[in-house]
Order: sequence, then C-alpha cells, then structure tokens
Amino acid sequence: VSSYGPHNLPYGVFSVDGGGRRLGVRVHDDVLDLDAAEASGLIDAGGALRAPTLNAFMAQGRPAWTAVRSRIRELVAAGDGTLVPLTECELHLPFAVADYVDFYSSAWHASNVGRILRPNQPSIPENWWHLPIGYHGRAGTVTVSGTPIVRPWGQRRGDDGPTFGPSTRLDIEAEVGFVVGVPSPLGSRVPVDRLREHVFGVVLVNDWSARDIQAWEYVPLGPFCGKSFATSVAPWVVPLDALDHAWVPAPEQNPPVLDYLRSEPHLGLDLRLAVEWNGTLVSEPPFQDMYWTPAQQLAHLTVNGASLCTGDLFASGTVSGPERTQVGSFLELTAEGPVRLADGSMRTFLEDGDTVTISATAPGPDGAVIGFGEVTGTVVKN
Amino acid sequence: VSSYGPHNLPYGVFSVDGGGRRLGVRVHDDVLDLDAAEASGLIDAGGALRAPTLNAFMAQGRPAWTAVRSRIRELVAAGDGTLVPLTECELHLPFAVADYVDFYSSAWHASNVGRILRPNQPSIPENWWHLPIGYHGRAGTVTVSGTPIVRPWGQRRGDDGPTFGPSTRLDIEAEVGFVVGVPSPLGSRVPVDRLREHVFGVVLVNDWSARDIQAWEYVPLGPFCGKSFATSVAPWVVPLDALDHAWVPAPEQNPPVLDYLRSEPHLGLDLRLAVEWNGTLVSEPPFQDMYWTPAQQLAHLTVNGASLCTGDLFASGTVSGPERTQVGSFLELTAEGPVRLADGSMRTFLEDGDTVTISATAPGPDGAVIGFGEVTGTVVKN
Repeated sequence: VSSYGPHNLPYGVFSVDGGGRRLGVRVHDDVLDLDAAEASGLIDAGGALRAPTLNAFMAQGRPAWTAVRSRIRELVAAGDGTLVPLTECELHLPFAVADYVDFYSSAWHASNVGRILRPNQPSIPENWWHLPIGYHGRAGTVTVSGTPIVRPWGQRRGDDGPTFGPSTRLDIEAEVGFVVGVPSPLGSRVPVDRLREHVFGVVLVNDWSARDIQAWEYVPLGPFCGKSFATSVAPWVVPLDALDHAWVPAPEQNPPVLDYLRSEPHLGLDLRLAVEWNGTLVSEPPFQDMYWTPAQQLAHLTVNGASLCTGDLFASGTVSGPERTQVGSFLELTAEGPVRLADGSMRTFLEDGDTVTISATAPGPDGAVIGFGEVTGTVVKN
Repeated sequence: VSSYGPHNLPYGVFSVDGGGRRLGVRVHDDVLDLDAAEASGLIDAGGALRAPTLNAFMAQGRPAWTAVRSRIRELVAAGDGTLVPLTECELHLPFAVADYVDFYSSAWHASNVGRILRPNQPSIPENWWHLPIGYHGRAGTVTVSGTPIVRPWGQRRGDDGPTFGPSTRLDIEAEVGFVVGVPSPLGSRVPVDRLREHVFGVVLVNDWSARDIQAWEYVPLGPFCGKSFATSVAPWVVPLDALDHAWVPAPEQNPPVLDYLRSEPHLGLDLRLAVEWNGTLVSEPPFQDMYWTPAQQLAHLTVNGASLCTGDLFASGTVSGPERTQVGSFLELTAEGPVRLADGSMRTFLEDGDTVTISATAPGPDGAVIGFGEVTGTVVKN
C-alpha cells in the first residue's frame, strides 16, 4: 500500500525538462500539477497555486489549506487534473525559507551530546528542563534534498592553537521541521494551543554538522560555521491535516513547565525516522520521545514578542531515542566505536562520497501509513 | 556643513502620505526620488531603482553601484530630479533582510562582558583571539529606526527555578552593520580581500538585548529569546563608495591569525558612534578599535562554503572602547553603578518610555563629514 495516497497528499515544487517551477502534490508515484489545476479552473486558491514556492498558499491560513486539500481529494478521486510521473520531475526547495530556528529538544540527544562534549559537567544543563533551547541557523543555506554537501573547511582546536582544514568530523542531525504559514505580528505571542493556526506542515530535515569546527567555535555564542554550510530538507511538506492520526501523548515533563509552555492535551507526533548510511540502515529515531513538543517550541519562539513570517522553519533538533540504534547523529552512533556498513567498511564520521538518506513514516487513518519522502545528500570533497 | 552632501548620498526607502514605498537618496535635508528619476529616464539602472527595497539594485554589483552614484552626483550638481523634504517622508526598512549575523568583535566589549557574566573564567575565551565569533540572529525582527520596542517577556534564573515576566535588564547594543549586495554560491568562499565586491554599504544597528533572559538561556547554543524580539537599523545605507576616506589601520592582531583571515593592508573604519539615552549623550564608541574587521568577518562567515544572499546583514557586535564613556551597551556602562541622565533621573537598564538614539559620523573628503542618520527606538510596556 502506498504511503502517498489521498490520506497524505504532501506539497512540493517541481519542474519538468528544465521548465519553470510549479507547485504540485504527490499522489502515489505521480505529481498532480497544481499550477495547471488552478490555471484551468479545477481549483481556485486565488492564484496562490500559480507560484514557484508554497509561500503564497501557506500564507492563506488553515481554512484555505483545508479547502484546497479537500478539492485535491475530489480531483484525485475523479481522476481529474494532470499527473506527471515523479521520475520525470526535478524537485526543488518547496518554500522560500524566512528564518530558520533549530531546537535541541530530545533529552536523549542532549544527554548523549553533553556526556561526549562536556564530560565534567552535568550532561544536561539546568535550563534545558525549563525551556526548549534553540538558536537561529542560516536560512540561506537550507537546500533541497539531493543537493551535494561540500565538505566545509574551518578552524578546529589544535595542540598549538587552532588548525585549519576540511572538517574531519562531519556529521548529520536527523530532525523534523515545522513550516510556518500564517505570520504573527511583532510584539505579540503565539499561545501554546495555536500551533494549528500557524503551522502549515512538516518536512524532514538533515542539519549537517561539522563537530570539530563546532566544538572550537561554540562558546559563548553557539554554533556558527559548524552548521551554516548546509541544511537539507525533503522536497515534500506533509500538511498538518494529514497527521490527525499521528498525535500521541508526549513524555511527561518534570520539573513542571511555566504556564506559557503548558499544553492540555500535551501531544507529540508519532513519526518514525530511518537513517541510511550508504544504503545501510543504521538508526531508527523515534520522534514521539521528544521532550519538547512543536507547540511548545512555537510558544517559546514567540514568547518575547518575536514575529513569525510565512516560510519560517523551526526544526526539532536531533531526534534520538534511548538505544544506540535510535540516535539521530553519528556523534552518538559511533561514540563507543565505529559502525560497520553493509559493504564491510567501517565509519565514525562521514567520508567523501558518503550518502545519507533520512526517511520517516507516521500512522494514517485505518492502518494507512503517511510517508514523508526522503532527505538525502552526498558528501563532496572540497 | 551638512553631513549629507554629495560626498555621502546614503540610500533609503521612503513613502509620502501613505503612498507606495520608493527608493531615495538623502541629499542634505531632502530625499531625491530615485523611482521618479528612473521612471523619467534621468537614471538608467535597468529598472532596479523602481522597487520597494534596495535589493535588486544591490544585487547588480559594484560597477552598477558606482555608475548610479556618479549619475546621482550629476543630477544633484545640476539640480535635476525630484527632491522631497525629509520632513514629509516616512522612512522604511531600506532592504529586505535575508540572513542576519551578529559578530562579537570588540575586545573591550568581550572583555567587559566576560568579566560581568563569567567572573570565574578568563574574561575572553581562547577561541575569541583566533576567529571572529558570531551567531545568526532573527532576520524577521530587524526593523527600521523608530519602530517601538515592546519590552520582551521571558524566563530568567530565580532562586527556585526560573521565573517569568517582563525583562528587568533590557539593554542596547550599539553596532555597525554591513549589507551584502552581491551573492556568492554555495560551497565557495569569499576571500578576505573581496569585501568591496560583495558589500554594498553600511547601516547603524541597535541590537536590543534582554540580559536576564539571555543569561538564563544562552548555554550551550547561544542567545535566542534574549535577542530575537527586535533589532533596529537606521533608515540610511551609506554606500561603501562614500567611505573611501574612513579606512584606517585596524588594531594589530596577536596571536597571528590564520591565512584565510590575514588581510594586507589590515583596515578598519573610523566611525565614531554616539549613544543618547533620553537625550543625554552617555557614550561615544569608537569603531576603529574593533579587533576583527568587516573583511575578516565576511571571510570567516563564508570559509565553510556558506553562500551569501543579497540582503544579508552582518553586524559588528557591540562597539566598545577602553573607557566607560566609550561602551556600546548599558550592561557595561552601568556595571559599577547607575548613570545620571540630564533630567536628574538614574538608570541601570532601560525603563518603559525610554528612548535610545545611536548616530555616527566618519571622515569624508576634504574635511567633510559623512553622517549615518540615526537608529532610534522607544521602549513600550507589554
């Protein structure tokens, strides 16, 4: 059974034969041409579907999102509209990224990383339990799945001052991203129960990370060159409306959180990620174990009055579960030694030519499965 | 003598009587309407001057910048073109901000802040001397001078876990920003001697900061809600071409920097800032004392292959000199006790209703002065 049936219908941007970028929605192994559908009057979204990114449509808000989704289901059921085989499509960045925020919301990941990077301190800092720690990443280097990842050069700690060269500890971070559709005004907050009014959908993220560069630079202002060289996203944004069956109770939070972060019900999403390294399945991170939920991340992000823009992307941070087979970074995966890939080779960090592919599924209605496509990238020597 | 004569000619975006946004250039106390000038054929920039932001023009690159500047000087000399009195203009954000990076490049500021926030550690961390430390800020909350600053709420450290409320330590950071015109491709570096090819101009920045929120949140991933609520910029972008007489030798760097950061000649800009708190001049930060130069910041920002976009803004970090009368933040200004303002009132951090105005000058040709306009903001209770 396909994970891309009418219960899913993720949105993307495609082109054919070097033509212009058009909005589309994935239906099994085809793309329904939304540009053509609106041009021919099959759908009316006020022209928002005739654009090279999802932004104008995303800005319209949930009533429009629901109406268009409903109309697409009718077209699919009736066999109307133009279907283009996925194999003929080039897929592009589905939305123009406004601000990119990266959180750090897995207790397992934070604990693992803390133990590795700060062995003489508590593995999770005190503030972590009270707020979803996050930072701003580089929006301009968010690229679509398939874009080559040029190995970054930079400074790293050496015995006699820093040394300079290509990163020797190039890593991934398997994450889940949330794409903002409806903006919010400067000076106002988005309450913790308003996620659905602002967030259009969900996209897989790989936040490539150069651990050697990051370790040297990150005190006191956080990661910079160790992260800013590339962040990959999947070409498909799964609408929140497709995930109604995927909400599950999130982990209990103790110590209790401040009121602005308290949600009732307190829900996370049951997404199951899979990380393949050169074709070998090395990890299956469980998103439902995330300590901080997307609703809490959004409330925290705006509690100071920061505005939201259409196209803002906020990502969960590395998704890691309690087991070594559930971690979302290679720093964690290989902390106690290299892994063996299917071809017999051993790995600790990424080598030139390596390919990492992250995919995910979530439960849909009546036992169906929601697919998120995949975010893939191959490391290129610089 | 005016600081806005033909030797300066800063660019901005204005509107009149609620009309559309138009590009303009400041000439003394008027604005020369660039939209009208291009519409009527007085200037030809391929249509780039007929836009609501500077971005299209900035993307054209230095030959176009030089040609347009030269033509504007001819118009000003001939008295051609439409001049609108500044008093009739509403001024807007001059460019659409792509990514916003904030550096931390004053040794005096880093040392002062380190002593205040991390009294048990070396006041400047070891890495600081080897790279221009920076982080990404929130591009979506960069606003034009005059925008009210709504006091942010957030978490701060308390005796029994964090407390929540309006910031009690609201501060400024007087900075100088550099605006990128010409983009660079992903996976390539901008060498340290190529600043002039990419940077269009200079804009004053006030990076408002909530010190109590920042202190609680910033370990380990850096500042987030303590900064992201607002960053103000002046309405005028002074073109780099106006600053030919302002370059001065930058402070000697010891330990020696890595090759990718080594510039010859090693130059900074002689900008003299002035900070007024409710009309009282409280500080005059000297930009020429900055340890890391804008050329080094740009080289570092891209050394890992991160691309540049038109509209990227990178700011210097707080400009502070060695004296208490030269610091660019109130954290430093009042570290040893409150200051008295002209009305006799005492201040440690910003109170509701307070106004901060930052201005600057630089040397121009033949003893003339280059003005940068001002970046001002008033704190509003939330």
